[in-house]
Amino acid sequence: MRLSKLVGERFKDIPAGVSAKSHSLLLRAGYIKQVANGVYSLLPSAQRVSLKIQNIIREEMNKVDGQEVLMPVMMPREIWDKSGRYTSIGQEMVRFKDRNNHEMLLGMTHEEACVHLCQNTVKSYDQLPCMIYQIQTKIRDEARPRAGLLRVREFTMKDAYSFHTNNDDLNEYYNRVYKAYERIYKRIGMKNVIAISSDNGMMGGDGAHEFQLLVEAGEDNLILCENCDYKANMEIATSKLDNANFDDEKLEELFTENAKTIDELAMLLKKDKKQFIKAVCYAISGEKDKVIVAFIRGDKEVNDAKLKKYLGVNDINVTDISDTGLVKGNIGCVNLEMDNIIKVFDLSLKDQKGLICGANKEEYHYCGVNMLRDVKADNFVDIAKVNEGELCPVCGKPLIIRKGIEVGNIFKLGTHYTSAMEMTVSMPDGSQINPIMGCYGIGVGRCLAGIVEESSDDKGIVWPKAIAPWLVYLCPLRNDNAEVEEISEKLYNELSQNFEVLYDDRKISAGIKLTDSELMGIPVRVVISPRSLSQSQAEITIRESGEKIMVDLANLNETLAKLTMID
Amino acid sequence: MRLSKLVGERFKDIPAGVSAKSHSLLLRAGYIKQVANGVYSLLPSAQRVSLKIQNIIREEMNKVDGQEVLMPVMMPREIWDKSGRYTSIGQEMVRFKDRNNHEMLLGMTHEEACVHLCQNTVKSYDQLPCMIYQIQTKIRDEARPRAGLLRVREFTMKDAYSFHTNNDDLNEYYNRVYKAYERIYKRIGMKNVIAISSDNGMMGGDGAHEFQLLVEAGEDNLILCENCDYKANMEIATSKLDNANFDDEKLEELFTENAKTIDELAMLLKKDKKQFIKAVCYAISGEKDKVIVAFIRGDKEVNDAKLKKYLGVNDINVTDISDTGLVKGNIGCVNLEMDNIIKVFDLSLKDQKGLICGANKEEYHYCGVNMLRDVKADNFVDIAKVNEGELCPVCGKPLIIRKGIEVGNIFKLGTHYTSAMEMTVSMPDGSQINPIMGCYGIGVGRCLAGIVEESSDDKGIVWPKAIAPWLVYLCPLRNDNAEVEEISEKLYNELSQNFEVLYDDRKISAGIKLTDSELMGIPVRVVISPRSLSQSQAEITIRESGEKIMVDLANLNETLAKLTMID
Repeated sequence: MRLSKLVGERFKDIPAGVSAKSHSLLLRAGYIKQVANGVYSLLPSAQRVSLKIQNIIREEMNKVDGQEVLMPVMMPREIWDKSGRYTSIGQEMVRFKDRNNHEMLLGMTHEEACVHLCQNTVKSYDQLPCMIYQIQTKIRDEARPRAGLLRVREFTMKDAYSFHTNNDDLNEYYNRVYKAYERIYKRIGMKNVIAISSDNGMMGGDGAHEFQLLVEAGEDNLILCENCDYKANMEIATSKLDNANFDDEKLEELFTENAKTIDELAMLLKKDKKQFIKAVCYAISGEKDKVIVAFIRGDKEVNDAKLKKYLGVNDINVTDISDTGLVKGNIGCVNLEMDNIIKVFDLSLKDQKGLICGANKEEYHYCGVNMLRDVKADNFVDIAKVNEGELCPVCGKPLIIRKGIEVGNIFKLGTHYTSAMEMTVSMPDGSQINPIMGCYGIGVGRCLAGIVEESSDDKGIVWPKAIAPWLVYLCPLRNDNAEVEEISEKLYNELSQNFEVLYDDRKISAGIKLTDSELMGIPVRVVISPRSLSQSQAEITIRESGEKIMVDLANLNETLAKLTMID
Repeated sequence: MRLSKLVGERFKDIPAGVSAKSHSLLLRAGYIKQVANGVYSLLPSAQRVSLKIQNIIREEMNKVDGQEVLMPVMMPREIWDKSGRYTSIGQEMVRFKDRNNHEMLLGMTHEEACVHLCQNTVKSYDQLPCMIYQIQTKIRDEARPRAGLLRVREFTMKDAYSFHTNNDDLNEYYNRVYKAYERIYKRIGMKNVIAISSDNGMMGGDGAHEFQLLVEAGEDNLILCENCDYKANMEIATSKLDNANFDDEKLEELFTENAKTIDELAMLLKKDKKQFIKAVCYAISGEKDKVIVAFIRGDKEVNDAKLKKYLGVNDINVTDISDTGLVKGNIGCVNLEMDNIIKVFDLSLKDQKGLICGANKEEYHYCGVNMLRDVKADNFVDIAKVNEGELCPVCGKPLIIRKGIEVGNIFKLGTHYTSAMEMTVSMPDGSQINPIMGCYGIGVGRCLAGIVEESSDDKGIVWPKAIAPWLVYLCPLRNDNAEVEEISEKLYNELSQNFEVLYDDRKISAGIKLTDSELMGIPVRVVISPRSLSQSQAEITIRESGEKIMVDLANLNETLAKLTMID
């Protein structure tokens, strides 16, 4: 490819409003162009990377007996009504009416379509296990697209779905895919990927892992133990409880004047924040009449994801309680009986005594609260956020927090979809069962951007060889010089037979050429200049290490063959 | 691939309501499954064919210096407002509002997105010519999806767009793509494809060709001359006028009683139908106050596509004229002056005399109509439909009509989009111009189905080798026999190293296996049976010719290598 003809412009300045490194580099190096908020065109160089990633994914999916299919982007409401997700999924699903006023949607995932495809085409136990996958466009109307390709509204995704007659078979296959994912990340050149067990979220089912790329730009908070193997997404992470076991005392009202927050109260009463019961109020979107009041130990915060999961709702928001009858800053769990509230108690309060909570009237709190004696709590659930330094629930050593980008996920779905859609297979004894499913996703564009986050420096991108858009950047300097021009053209024609060569045939300054080659991140640069030619040599620079080698032109082919070999 | 695990079921009966051969065969052979009206999933065997077609297209696009990109399916209204097509395209474009109430659409074509991509990334004459292409999902809400994959609402399409500084450059490049298209059809195994010049339709611009696959299931009517090279889609085809030149007479009213249609009048007055002026009334959708009255020679019919193009509208319909003031069956172009009508005159009436038309009152017609003397017609345009047997406009020999499937099209777009979207490139003299565009489409799924239409027999599909999902169908008969089973398994493992093998490992009757292999259309079948093994042989059958060959097992690899070689 001649760079002079390549569609895509390189520029120096970081575009306004861009913070993520991959976003900035992919824009500046001419890889992507924004079309709308969270919607991008891939320019030729990015599409080359994307196709290489896709092919590696395809090869690994085929190795685990995957069968590639193509399901539609546009689907009728009916098949999603069967699973209940047409109504349970929120605004991230695009819905529209077709010309015949039929309700349609755009796929953000394809469990329903997959069951539809396999229903009546996979009918017998001896066809199982089987797995179908596709590499396809997904539309997801994200509330907050961000960071270029890291969180978008339209993306290319590999999604795969497997069917099994029993859990052992699912577990065995799930582990095969787990290993295939590890191979995929290794092959595309991602270094710091970890698998962590995760929340099944809206997918349903009973077991899941996320593959997280550990980079600063990540938006997921991961709780890791440096001592043992404990790893969890903040959304479901737990820590070992460290309750103080305060003395049991009798329940009394305390005048607390203007102290409202836990900090103010702890200072006023000179008590540890752990001795307080914090109340946090939420509204569930769409349900105006109910207020959720979450009670939790004073030094802890509520993890919204856990609370949502416990409540079985898609969306909650911290709410204004002015019209509810609750007393702001003085809400407490003793003698709180109101029809319009739902009380939730965090595990940190279970069986505790000697605590302090609001007295549900202005300027007063209770002290000596004994949860068993004074509070009618049906059950206690873990809704607490884990903070760095809290103790590992497995080994008791301190936990750390790292940022991650979710670059893949695998789920054990169980029979959630096959039973809802009444897909059955016949068993050897003639009975019919709903097959058990697994599902397995990888976002291609997010992998591409994730690699840029991980593999770049202050000069630009450093593509791993396996997915680099081109492997060789042929870079004549001073190509107004006839000899440089002639030899470079000849080399371009020759080298292109054996390698993917990007030929910088532009007649511009050496500085721009060298800078562009680094910005674009091509693994091996071959410089031809009057000086190198005076020795019948080319100067090779390895993008990743910066190492420079002078090579005789006669040996160039051989040297490049070694340098471009994919490990 | 083991057939026992392949997702996709084969069945014998033609599904209800299915008429097109490709639709029936692709369903019956387990290639596709319908998800909604005009929306299909591709099962693994179809996806294999589709990927092979895509790769051939990709290779040929790369050969003409195409740069592969990926533009989004989902686009904001703004970029389509610039070309005016957000409003000018009808219901076939899917529009919806995103969660922020922003108007979005789903791409049915990508001229606007392409200009958006290249604007400011292609800026100088020396970057031209350049061409970008993508292989991507298109959504088009067709009014009448039909015939399986032949006319659908969602499809995979290769669309390409080129930019040029002048028309000579466009013409030269256009011809290169024309030849690339010929190579694509040849390589994927399509035989009867012809290129015909076509209507630019809603694409704008000034020159276009359709590539039409001549098969009975086609829905396009093509007018061909068997004598010379004249070929045209019915939508724009013309024929040589054969006017009778009637004698000039004076204008007189005739009592025609109940005769209303041309047939009735011709019989009543004992005149040639050519002597009459037919009036056909249309409404334009969305414009209730206007009636189009098209006048044409009595033996001819109006071609709606030509009329729409002349009027510059998307949709017209033959209309009920009861409330318009026009007299049904007696409409004539003499003394017809009404504010609510638009008169259009076909070329067949130009300068004609001695004609008969309605007198715009019940039971009366005029005879002796002289177009020059009696009718105030501003201009005459060709709005006539060509019938089989009419004369070629080039050589004057009779024309024939053939059915075709449009399997590709190429357009010279001019500067329609670049000027509307204000994309400019700088020229050597420093001036800025709007580059001239070409665009080039091929529907992948339609090609797949078109090949099945062309290449199939009463037993099933006959895939061309270059796109067959598998090249070898390994078919043990009586694999309850231990020797057959053992040797077949061994052969499957060996042959899979060198060939794409579909292995029919099912323990079912020979009849079903042989029938399925023919239905699925795999080019080479290798039968292993107790009888063939008694001679240490396999029986090979070529799907296309039906030819059978007995081959020693020792020579099987070598023979298959010859038989599966792609021409």
